[in-house]
Amino acid sequence: MLLLRLHRVRVLGLQQASRLRSTLRFCIRACSTDDSFQPQYPSFTYNDSSASRGWGVMGTLLGLGAVLAYHECRCRADQESPRMYTREEVSSHCSPKTGIWVTFGHEVFDVTEFVDLHPGGPAKLMLAAGGPLEPFWALYAVHNQPHVREILAQYKIGELNPNDKAPPTLETSDPYAGDPPRHPALKVNSQRPFNAEPPTELLTENYITPNPLFFTRNHLPVPNLDPDTYRLHVVGPPGGQPLSLSLDDLRQFPKHEVTVTVQCAGNRRSEMTKVKEVKGLEWRAGAISTARWAGARLCDVLAQAGHHLSETEAHVCFEGLDSDLTGTAYGASIPLARALDPEAEVLLAYEMNGQPLPRDHGFPVRVVVPGVVGARHVKWLGKVSVEPEESYSHWQRRDYKGFSPSVDWDTVDFDLAPSIQELPIQSAITEPRDGETIESGEVTVKGYAWSGGGRAVVRVDVSLDGGLTWQVAELDGEEQRPRKAWAWRLWRLQAPVPAGQKELNIICKAVDDSYNVQPDTVAPIWNLRGVLNNAWHRVHVYVTP
Amino acid sequence: MLLLRLHRVRVLGLQQASRLRSTLRFCIRACSTDDSFQPQYPSFTYNDSSASRGWGVMGTLLGLGAVLAYHECRCRADQESPRMYTREEVSSHCSPKTGIWVTFGHEVFDVTEFVDLHPGGPAKLMLAAGGPLEPFWALYAVHNQPHVREILAQYKIGELNPNDKAPPTLETSDPYAGDPPRHPALKVNSQRPFNAEPPTELLTENYITPNPLFFTRNHLPVPNLDPDTYRLHVVGPPGGQPLSLSLDDLRQFPKHEVTVTVQCAGNRRSEMTKVKEVKGLEWRAGAISTARWAGARLCDVLAQAGHHLSETEAHVCFEGLDSDLTGTAYGASIPLARALDPEAEVLLAYEMNGQPLPRDHGFPVRVVVPGVVGARHVKWLGKVSVEPEESYSHWQRRDYKGFSPSVDWDTVDFDLAPSIQELPIQSAITEPRDGETIESGEVTVKGYAWSGGGRAVVRVDVSLDGGLTWQVAELDGEEQRPRKAWAWRLWRLQAPVPAGQKELNIICKAVDDSYNVQPDTVAPIWNLRGVLNNAWHRVHVYVTP
Repeated sequence: MLLLRLHRVRVLGLQQASRLRSTLRFCIRACSTDDSFQPQYPSFTYNDSSASRGWGVMGTLLGLGAVLAYHECRCRADQESPRMYTREEVSSHCSPKTGIWVTFGHEVFDVTEFVDLHPGGPAKLMLAAGGPLEPFWALYAVHNQPHVREILAQYKIGELNPNDKAPPTLETSDPYAGDPPRHPALKVNSQRPFNAEPPTELLTENYITPNPLFFTRNHLPVPNLDPDTYRLHVVGPPGGQPLSLSLDDLRQFPKHEVTVTVQCAGNRRSEMTKVKEVKGLEWRAGAISTARWAGARLCDVLAQAGHHLSETEAHVCFEGLDSDLTGTAYGASIPLARALDPEAEVLLAYEMNGQPLPRDHGFPVRVVVPGVVGARHVKWLGKVSVEPEESYSHWQRRDYKGFSPSVDWDTVDFDLAPSIQELPIQSAITEPRDGETIESGEVTVKGYAWSGGGRAVVRVDVSLDGGLTWQVAELDGEEQRPRKAWAWRLWRLQAPVPAGQKELNIICKAVDDSYNVQPDTVAPIWNLRGVLNNAWHRVHVYVTP
Repeated sequence: MLLLRLHRVRVLGLQQASRLRSTLRFCIRACSTDDSFQPQYPSFTYNDSSASRGWGVMGTLLGLGAVLAYHECRCRADQESPRMYTREEVSSHCSPKTGIWVTFGHEVFDVTEFVDLHPGGPAKLMLAAGGPLEPFWALYAVHNQPHVREILAQYKIGELNPNDKAPPTLETSDPYAGDPPRHPALKVNSQRPFNAEPPTELLTENYITPNPLFFTRNHLPVPNLDPDTYRLHVVGPPGGQPLSLSLDDLRQFPKHEVTVTVQCAGNRRSEMTKVKEVKGLEWRAGAISTARWAGARLCDVLAQAGHHLSETEAHVCFEGLDSDLTGTAYGASIPLARALDPEAEVLLAYEMNGQPLPRDHGFPVRVVVPGVVGARHVKWLGKVSVEPEESYSHWQRRDYKGFSPSVDWDTVDFDLAPSIQELPIQSAITEPRDGETIESGEVTVKGYAWSGGGRAVVRVDVSLDGGLTWQVAELDGEEQRPRKAWAWRLWRLQAPVPAGQKELNIICKAVDDSYNVQPDTVAPIWNLRGVLNNAWHRVHVYVTP
């Protein structure tokens, strides 16, 4: 198969070099980085044999691809004394109309003519248009090779003016002034508090979402916590002793690792807004990401505090160390039965993809509740207690609940609906993008599918004709464990574009192992908070004649 | 509220007496019977305080209702020597056109004029048209009162000819000749093997389905087993001892009782057939019923045989004592993890609603797997074993699986789909019936809702306008336990009929506590076996001007 593809590449002319994309893309793999966006080599430490295989073929393919794709490019590196540009000038060159400039270190490059030749696809390079390449090369370590630098050098047009300072940081009176830097590729839905999602075209490039691209849903400013003085307060049962656990104490519990997809209840809210206005951030299909989490199991910590399963219904309440101006912290709860079930694998996580948690994701400790809505994965965890009732937090009782489409803000009674815990079956298309123009011949449709409660994805159906006929997609990514399918499946369908079609209405819908399916349309599941949109995902594309 | 209703009743004339139905219906409660259809008084032994309250007000209301509704009926009992009829003559009088006759004991009654006055509604009385009343009075013990007999006596027209024998039984060469007698109200989808469902108008009259009305899904002839010689064979682990358990042995295990709704995967298949032909019996919305089951927990029996949870995935295989001409028994399996989980409450049941299991429902022992498709609730249980693979039975591997609508009998690969275990969220309308004509003013919509896997029903939305707007129905029936919501919720909506409407397109859709919802339409979930139809349920009715 690989040989066949290489053979096909040999007979392609330069004009067709962009087709290399589909061959090369699978060797572009993410590496995890910390918040500093420095280029890094892959640092995954967990067992992923397919990853090392991918890295192996990558060198060969990239070498070949580079020769074929770029051998006719003229050397355009400036031989004279370099021209100087400000960051502002660079940032204004971010479209085909203005020209597309990028920086690497102090050097400035005009890559307008290279965009269509980019082996990862033009859309990916465009994410960096007008700014530095480093944050992206940090994610896609394939770039960290001498011949990639050589190619880039051909497009050099000058350097950054050394007198041009980086943009000033936020004012210190701003409660969000202490928030960490973020990756420029993130699509920001709200700066304060920070809420952002990865662009769809990057979302399913990797089974494991790189930390800097993991969607971020903050409700409050990010606290700046000292790992040395950090303590987790665990309230004991009546008459028992409370625990005060340092990060080192937590590390003394058996370390448990699990790959978990986290999804915000508001994922795909923007489609609900099109039906009728809702209250909430305009998430597209990117409020979902997957990481390998490691930490202490909550059941082990609760057991040490002396908690055991009660006859009556009880809840484990979590409080974050983030708080508003009145000192009210973020809070949420989950049923005690889930917290104490070792098979439910609820974690007090201190690692994300082999790194300490990034600040945006709860440093130093957050809750991870596999199969459950993101709102219960409390970040910057400060306190754990067992209560007869659910958390009295606003986010447990007055938010993150589903209602009938007939309920509005005048009639809503939040006490009538259960708090969202397990999420329903979900899927979305990440490629092609809505409104994109695709070539006739063959189309590749890609996306993700996931279900809550540990239910495995058993099938994804894709339609190219608005739902009249369906084809079964191929499931990629890791196999799912029965009853513990905490992580998504990526999927793809390669299919002929029906002859003569000028447009395609592409739809995906998934099925989980309880044979739950997604509803056809958004309007009948519309709700005033715009949560729980799991209707069929639809993408409309044009076909070049 | 009750006083208000009584007051309203007082001002009604005889012409409006049929409205009494809505007032009286709620006091008509089921009693469980064995297969013999002898009238019985209620024999529920479990705690149901609302039932005794219902029985309390029933006497008062029925007395009043009888006086109001029947005081003008002329006494028509034949004073002369009785006229004689054959059963065949009686059975030919089963419609308003021919007249509506029924029998009670050896007496024959022409109830044509009474049908519209029947406090339980005309449709219920029509179920008995042309035949004996006893099987229905056995279900609705409210009839076993002297004044009801007095009312009936007014309609007597003669007696059954004592020389007219009951219809002959089936031939003994027929493998189904030994099947038990069945309740005449059941809608039969197949006689051999016997497959039948209760009529929708009876289905949600009771939270607990009376045994004779419980839907019956047999794959083979019903075995005739002697409870004294019956043995359940439990295969031990390698090197361990097998168990051979008599019915008395099983009764030595702690007796566990649980209310469980059982649903056939083919429930509502007839709606799928309308999209495109499928292979399977034409079940309407009645292949679902609820009973109070009692027996030994499977986990206790497996523990006694020496089985415990294995590191690798394993399955508990069940074999029935029903078999085809080649000796092949019905079989199915469930994952060992579910079988061994005490919280999953899997039973080896020997009681159904306080009675020994009826023969059609697995006498003397069947499996009950709460939250799981009926096909795994193996009846006439003969053998239990723990295997590394799922049951090799046809019904586990080549049936009861879901596929994409694109898969047909030429392309199907049964190995590609998981066997159905937990079922998805389901709901259906049982009143009014499709095609019925309702009065303008107010409409009452009733139905059931249930989800697999112990997921509770949190909401039922009802639309009267084909899905444009929705109203939230009131949930009746018992409260559901978190994570162990094994039994359905009944629901109802009373709403004004929109003025000027000549027809209504009524729809229901339910939501479970994982916020799973039902899909809008049938076609996109169509599959070649016609299983798993949980699309919105739709009923079209006409409104009298």
